[in-house]
Amino acid sequence: MKVLLSQDDLPRVWFNISPYLPEPLPPPLDPVTREPVSPVKLLDIFPDPIVEQEVSQEEWIPIPEEVLQVYALWRPSPLVRAVNLERALDTPAQIYYKYEGVSPPGSHKPNTAVAQAYYNKISGVKRLTTETGAGQWGSSLAFATQFFGLECEVYMVRASYNQKPYRRILMELWGAKVYPSPSDNTKAGRTFLERDPEHPGSLGIAISEAIERALEDKSTKYSLGSVLNHVLLHQTIIGLEAKRQMEILGIYPDYIVGCVGGGSNFAGLAFPFLKDKITGDKPDTEFWAVEPTACPTLTKGEYRYDYGDTVGLTPLIKMYTLGADFVPPPIHAGGLRYHGDAPLLCAFYHHRYIKACAYDQKEVFSAGVLFARTEGIVPAPESAHAVKKAIDLALECKEKKEKKIILFNLSGHGYFDLSAYDSYLKGVLA
Amino acid sequence: MKVLLSQDDLPRVWFNISPYLPEPLPPPLDPVTREPVSPVKLLDIFPDPIVEQEVSQEEWIPIPEEVLQVYALWRPSPLVRAVNLERALDTPAQIYYKYEGVSPPGSHKPNTAVAQAYYNKISGVKRLTTETGAGQWGSSLAFATQFFGLECEVYMVRASYNQKPYRRILMELWGAKVYPSPSDNTKAGRTFLERDPEHPGSLGIAISEAIERALEDKSTKYSLGSVLNHVLLHQTIIGLEAKRQMEILGIYPDYIVGCVGGGSNFAGLAFPFLKDKITGDKPDTEFWAVEPTACPTLTKGEYRYDYGDTVGLTPLIKMYTLGADFVPPPIHAGGLRYHGDAPLLCAFYHHRYIKACAYDQKEVFSAGVLFARTEGIVPAPESAHAVKKAIDLALECKEKKEKKIILFNLSGHGYFDLSAYDSYLKGVLA
Repeated sequence: MKVLLSQDDLPRVWFNISPYLPEPLPPPLDPVTREPVSPVKLLDIFPDPIVEQEVSQEEWIPIPEEVLQVYALWRPSPLVRAVNLERALDTPAQIYYKYEGVSPPGSHKPNTAVAQAYYNKISGVKRLTTETGAGQWGSSLAFATQFFGLECEVYMVRASYNQKPYRRILMELWGAKVYPSPSDNTKAGRTFLERDPEHPGSLGIAISEAIERALEDKSTKYSLGSVLNHVLLHQTIIGLEAKRQMEILGIYPDYIVGCVGGGSNFAGLAFPFLKDKITGDKPDTEFWAVEPTACPTLTKGEYRYDYGDTVGLTPLIKMYTLGADFVPPPIHAGGLRYHGDAPLLCAFYHHRYIKACAYDQKEVFSAGVLFARTEGIVPAPESAHAVKKAIDLALECKEKKEKKIILFNLSGHGYFDLSAYDSYLKGVLA
Repeated sequence: MKVLLSQDDLPRVWFNISPYLPEPLPPPLDPVTREPVSPVKLLDIFPDPIVEQEVSQEEWIPIPEEVLQVYALWRPSPLVRAVNLERALDTPAQIYYKYEGVSPPGSHKPNTAVAQAYYNKISGVKRLTTETGAGQWGSSLAFATQFFGLECEVYMVRASYNQKPYRRILMELWGAKVYPSPSDNTKAGRTFLERDPEHPGSLGIAISEAIERALEDKSTKYSLGSVLNHVLLHQTIIGLEAKRQMEILGIYPDYIVGCVGGGSNFAGLAFPFLKDKITGDKPDTEFWAVEPTACPTLTKGEYRYDYGDTVGLTPLIKMYTLGADFVPPPIHAGGLRYHGDAPLLCAFYHHRYIKACAYDQKEVFSAGVLFARTEGIVPAPESAHAVKKAIDLALECKEKKEKKIILFNLSGHGYFDLSAYDSYLKGVLA
């Protein structure tokens, strides 16, 4: 069962949760002086309107008409009741998922990529740079920039560039220039190439390259796909739509579930509902952030100041972290391998508004296969973490005979991750 | 701009165009006696309700509730106005596409796969067999059978099995057993393997294997993804939805465009509109069937009796054909490489209700890239043929300053065909 909104119901504002923080976010610190960093410093790599949104205390921020027009290519996204999955689990619970895989790049990422491309365009920027691992974020930014006539330059971790050509092709098809990182376009890249001409790269190096390129040219800016406040803001369109869809059904979720890498898809679904918990309207809703045991940022990390990147170029930010030098094992949910988490998400977790749990790769793929065989859609390995938690909650409801309502974010499809499913089916998954 | 129907608007009947034929379809003939084949013979490989639909003269055939429930996972599919493409072409024409790539297997094929799986299930069948080339049809049948607890056995052309693992994995993920063909499961397969243990296979051999398996076991039946009347019938849900969506907009198409391999996606969109041309309500609508120059069945074939398969197992059917032994070059639009076409489509083409044109692979990919860069969606190479014709019609309208309305079927996405786009972008496409 599916709830579709008409395009007239597309939300016209994003929801900014900052005014509802129990205390102001600890400010980013200069790594040398340990003094708070002025937002002005951010203007080196981000345009004005993005920096404004990063620090805004306005609850509602209008979505520009030009952004809405591109959103309309796939939004509003469907809210679906997973009737077949419920039946397979024989649970009295109702399971709903918000499906973000309907976007052309196949995930929630374009919700922010389109907004960022637009704000850069109106700020006179000509070119955006970014990094990408497996290509989920890079393909979303390539997709977005083409609508606004911006150049897009993507630094793709060389190991992925060589092993996973499909997303690289997708980026090129959407007009982006994709470089295997380390590349010889940047000082940072050349340093690593000198040590090893076949260097496999890392997300940290790719970030350094993308930022270096943005710093050396006034008309070039940098774009980030998660973690920062403005990214989470843009993703709230997910939760705003879901809320409206549940209102149409006359229901409200008891559990809200999302996987967490940097935190943007989780926050996008959760924050519009979290407001109701904070204000006391819906005090009992449970929010579950799901991560891999291979990168257990919330469940095992420390809440402290740390670098956002691996090489130490960014300001220090207060977040749950496994340490900027933490290198998670190469799991298939590449999007969940970040050592830290979004500061906004971390603040609410710290104040116990949000719970967290972690799963092993095998149980996650097992949940993904069950979902594919009941609901028909193959979840991205990242999103399968949320599927797994939704299943566990539904089974708990079965045990307790409770008719609870579970809502999770199916943040993307897994049609570019089929070789991982193949390994799982063949029993050779690490 | 997108027109979405609510699930309450999902059509409850399929449209059967047979009563509107200018003359009855020439009957299938026994290849030896040249006598008409009784429909009863079809019961060896198809269940009762399918054979009934194959020969039905009822205009409206109810869609079973169980089929509607599975359709609801992705249907009604969106009708989209390609505003960005119109702008890029600077045309006064309006271009609309019906997007069938929203189904989990990514094409229109599950519209019939789900119906066929259901009818086999209620007829006591335990297992369905089929053949597949690149895997588009096989993955749709795998997807469909899992909802009805049927086993699914797919014979996949060995060359594709080895070179294109993604759709093979998708079929296995949805619970199917996939065998590279020729296999040692069948007499036909073993014959070819004896000659060459590494035989690359062909669709003709794979059909023989799938049919042989269906003939040797009462509880096993065979399933075909195009060409036959009942397949085209099930696909009419596309056109019925599109008609309703255009009614909401208060418009009616001047041109209706679809690519043609066996003819099912074209017929699915076109037939509900074609009725209006036949009855004289809309005499001026133009219907365009688009094929590759590499396999120009309608544009260069002869209208005569021929075998449906390559090895000559099927009855002789009257259709446009390039000859059962015609081997088209290996183009990327694998779904358009059939030597014949659906008898229903051929009859209407013969009586000049439908026009046909053919394009080269390169111009088709060029259209696909333009579409991806304006509308965001990467078309399947098959569907890109329809995109190309829609673009050409829009440019004609520009020249003639005509505000015509163009509707085409975007029958599937190209996310499993990115290596073909890569070849095109690199300029190495054959």
